[in-house]
Amino acid sequence: MTIRKIILAGAAIALTISASTTFAQFQNADKAVEYRESVMTVIGTHFGRIGAVVKGDVPYNKDEVAKNAAIVAMMSTLPWQAFGPGTEGGKAKPEVWSDNAKFKAAAEKMQLAAANLNTAAQSGDLDNIKKAFGATGQACKGCHDDFKKK
Amino acid sequence: MTIRKIILAGAAIALTISASTTFAQFQNADKAVEYRESVMTVIGTHFGRIGAVVKGDVPYNKDEVAKNAAIVAMMSTLPWQAFGPGTEGGKAKPEVWSDNAKFKAAAEKMQLAAANLNTAAQSGDLDNIKKAFGATGQACKGCHDDFKKK
Repeated sequence: MTIRKIILAGAAIALTISASTTFAQFQNADKAVEYRESVMTVIGTHFGRIGAVVKGDVPYNKDEVAKNAAIVAMMSTLPWQAFGPGTEGGKAKPEVWSDNAKFKAAAEKMQLAAANLNTAAQSGDLDNIKKAFGATGQACKGCHDDFKKK
Repeated sequence: MTIRKIILAGAAIALTISASTTFAQFQNADKAVEYRESVMTVIGTHFGRIGAVVKGDVPYNKDEVAKNAAIVAMMSTLPWQAFGPGTEGGKAKPEVWSDNAKFKAAAEKMQLAAANLNTAAQSGDLDNIKKAFGATGQACKGCHDDFKKK
């Protein structure tokens, strides 16, 4: 039995998305910045792979898009915990903290869009994937315009 | 209906771990390095949160440990695709490429350990979690000793 088979047999993971803006503890602000920017890098990579399919640069493969969308959806729940009080810095504008209610609303919008993209990706309807990809991209861009440094 | 409820109702994600060392395309080597080091940062953060429980610094909460272990297990499948030919650099020693079979074996060992940790975490048996955490930590350390720059 290969390791692959052992893992496939024993360790399917069910991850429930919970839209969350709860803050978690980090050792210091630098660790929080590094964490949230790392999460965004991973999201951007996998979102970009779906984008390549949506743009027609890469042929549509349901399993690949579904895997990338599941990663994006799960990861979309993670960065917000790392924008707690005292973690100003990195690529985040001060407005994250000075207009925090707006930031949290934008974060929830992005998580919902990513969840919808994942639902579309798991169903395998490319038209729905394209629409949901567009909506997610808008949610990313809207938040970046307001809260991410150029 | 709150966004949280909508998401909880609609978007439970099933992510199947597949031990993988297949290479994916990155725009360039820097992107691959940034991606793999970002994934490692996220893994380290969530693995560290389980470690705080194992060490007794934080009280055991089944849901929290289960969530962190699920993230570690899922993320443990991701970095290897970014160690493809021509992506030397960052914190990776040249041995990743010059002794690639050994590196791949270490990567598979770590994914299996992380999957076992997740299984223990979902079951909620703290003694098993401690054992599986130790084994995963050994798998991380073993690979870092051989393949990560100090």
